[in-house]
Amino acid sequence: MMARQDARVLKGFRDYLPEDMILRQRLTDIFRSIFEKHGFEPIDTPTLEYLDVLTGKAGENEKLMYHFEDHGGRRVGLRYDLTVPLARFVAMHENDVVLPFKRYHIAPVWRAEKPQRGRFREFIQCDADIVGSSSMLADAEGISVLADAIHAVGLPQAVISINHRKLLAALARLAGVPAEHAGGVFRAVDKLDKIGADGVRRELVDAGVDAGSADRVLALVTQQGDSASLLASADHQLADVDGGPEAVRELRALTRHLDELGVAPETWKIDLALARGIDYYTGPVCEARVESPRVGSIAGTGRYDGLIGNFLGRQIPATGISLGFERILEVVREYNLIEVPSAVADAFMVYLPDTIAQASRIVRKLRNEGLRVDQSIIDNKGLGAQLKYADRRRIPFAIIPGAGELDRGTVSLKNLQSGEQVEVSIAGLADELRALTRGVAPVG
Amino acid sequence: MMARQDARVLKGFRDYLPEDMILRQRLTDIFRSIFEKHGFEPIDTPTLEYLDVLTGKAGENEKLMYHFEDHGGRRVGLRYDLTVPLARFVAMHENDVVLPFKRYHIAPVWRAEKPQRGRFREFIQCDADIVGSSSMLADAEGISVLADAIHAVGLPQAVISINHRKLLAALARLAGVPAEHAGGVFRAVDKLDKIGADGVRRELVDAGVDAGSADRVLALVTQQGDSASLLASADHQLADVDGGPEAVRELRALTRHLDELGVAPETWKIDLALARGIDYYTGPVCEARVESPRVGSIAGTGRYDGLIGNFLGRQIPATGISLGFERILEVVREYNLIEVPSAVADAFMVYLPDTIAQASRIVRKLRNEGLRVDQSIIDNKGLGAQLKYADRRRIPFAIIPGAGELDRGTVSLKNLQSGEQVEVSIAGLADELRALTRGVAPVG
Repeated sequence: MMARQDARVLKGFRDYLPEDMILRQRLTDIFRSIFEKHGFEPIDTPTLEYLDVLTGKAGENEKLMYHFEDHGGRRVGLRYDLTVPLARFVAMHENDVVLPFKRYHIAPVWRAEKPQRGRFREFIQCDADIVGSSSMLADAEGISVLADAIHAVGLPQAVISINHRKLLAALARLAGVPAEHAGGVFRAVDKLDKIGADGVRRELVDAGVDAGSADRVLALVTQQGDSASLLASADHQLADVDGGPEAVRELRALTRHLDELGVAPETWKIDLALARGIDYYTGPVCEARVESPRVGSIAGTGRYDGLIGNFLGRQIPATGISLGFERILEVVREYNLIEVPSAVADAFMVYLPDTIAQASRIVRKLRNEGLRVDQSIIDNKGLGAQLKYADRRRIPFAIIPGAGELDRGTVSLKNLQSGEQVEVSIAGLADELRALTRGVAPVG
Repeated sequence: MMARQDARVLKGFRDYLPEDMILRQRLTDIFRSIFEKHGFEPIDTPTLEYLDVLTGKAGENEKLMYHFEDHGGRRVGLRYDLTVPLARFVAMHENDVVLPFKRYHIAPVWRAEKPQRGRFREFIQCDADIVGSSSMLADAEGISVLADAIHAVGLPQAVISINHRKLLAALARLAGVPAEHAGGVFRAVDKLDKIGADGVRRELVDAGVDAGSADRVLALVTQQGDSASLLASADHQLADVDGGPEAVRELRALTRHLDELGVAPETWKIDLALARGIDYYTGPVCEARVESPRVGSIAGTGRYDGLIGNFLGRQIPATGISLGFERILEVVREYNLIEVPSAVADAFMVYLPDTIAQASRIVRKLRNEGLRVDQSIIDNKGLGAQLKYADRRRIPFAIIPGAGELDRGTVSLKNLQSGEQVEVSIAGLADELRALTRGVAPVG
């Protein structure tokens, strides 16, 4: 017995077994393909950045970051999100980047937070952003990506809610809330689902809003109706409120583009109470929720015209979408929404001492034809033990290269789940395997 | 003018522009597909680990690691390679992992080293390992992966050298070098290419080997001949040397399997001077080199039977391959070996105010058919400026949805490089674009 080293993983961090990883890769491939269909281009940025780049001028979020002094005495941190690195990227590559710039970025981020169920210290973010366009066509593209992602994954009963930060701010102003309390209104109203109307009223009053205004805000943001009538009503109510008409006009343009882009009207609704948690949003915001399992928000989009220019010293409009990779994965698992193979390999080639040369040549041929074939390396085990090994690895088929069959130009193909065994010509083996395993290929 | 935040990137770290990223993704997809064809399954492990897990019992490499104390006072580090995490993984998931375990892992690692040309502090490693098999079939699978990778990428004049650590040790013993100097022999001989025979002799003597033995080691490892004759000669010379016959037997089995697996004999050679830099190798080792551009070693394989068991307290044999992602990329760039599109999008849909609704529906249809279409979001610009934008983004084709054409059920399709413009029926547009852009799709 050797001295044994202690094996453990940091809390909030995860190993991914092959079965997890095959599913994660499949979901990544789906999202990547949707982003690319919409013309977004991939970029990547370093895991480690100068800490001041990550925290920004306000020094925000520093205590939620993994940060330290590196061997050169530089204060560095693990990236906290993909949006600040994007802003830094656009500034540094100003001459290579053509505006409007459409990029996607699928990569891990790190948060030094207390891990909870479904919340990790290391997790994948999956963002697509358009930098340098004020057009509602850009916001509509983001929501089209979102709708496509929901459709491609088959998320059940996902509802997309849409609002506009300036519409919400104008409603607050109409209710008598002074402009400096707008941030407090966004934060309070955003919790309507969680803490109810009474809770929101309490938060508003705590934030310094008088009780009458708080009631009026609540009444305004909880107006009911279909999207057209809510917009008509807001248009009427906000005709003379600063920012109101502009917000209504933008939302109308946005929803018209959604229709044109084929985002079905029954998949989204206007929700005047939607604020979204992120401070820096300045325009249309949108959120997709799944109620069962109760994972809540699974993706969101939002316009943020004030952030990207921080490193350039001039304002650059931007709008983006973030798919909640880990939460979507939770729903996918719960409902088995994506069929993935139980193993990477389509087939297992049994080792028989007398036919190893011919068997290897068949493996080579199958691989050249694009099949995934695990060649047995347990040449010290008998046929039964090898088949058991392949079955434990959940490889669906075993190929048995018996000398008699090889003489006839065939092999035995055994279905490891049913136990059924058939003799198949070597020439037709690739097609046979392809037909049997079709539709569950892990790559492409 | 806003107050401007300072945009910079840590030395040794890199941003990837879309054109870099498209190529990196393509190369990753190629390697992933080769690993999977060989039945390797994907896993992933955390970026951050307990520092003692990474450094091991000997506390090795600590000064080359990014490490720090996290907010909970734990000593943690960024992973330095993918092999130590594999050993930890196998121990922690002993019940889920079926031995022999074949996994691949494509992920970044970090080294707190001085950055040099082609050497970075953050870079991708691309490993496939087989844990729990002593069979030479397993080592042959690794070299088959290597040969397939060279072939798939089209690396010019790549030469695969093969040796065996125990053969080299036995040759040293035959030359009169005591067993405790074997490590020094590996390290010295490994530099033969760089420092020549005289340099190696000096290093051997510096390491405590007497001059006569050093000369004999050099004469033995630089014997010339084809693979069969080198093995025959070693077999003869080492018949009575401890470990020699076993090493020759293993190399003979390995090279026979290579032949059976279709790894062409002209692509590899036995090189008795090959040692490989990594300390923990115990069996067959192999290295692929490219001489032009002079990037040196671009991939290697090796058996290391002493490492994986560290966390389990018992020895587990293992063999693995590592593809030098960044160096291979350098060769790919130098010789333009992989054709990738200049942009993700196949086509750009021009915005014309009067036809935006119909244009969006065409975009939708094309995307549904799998095409990547960038819908213009510069609705404040004229036709000329939009075409210029698409061309600057290097999108190959623009679709111009003129009202007259739409009435005829057509659009104009403009080749942005040649300037040629043709009228294409909307019904046939997807097929037309597919035909024009075929072969350079970035995903799948």
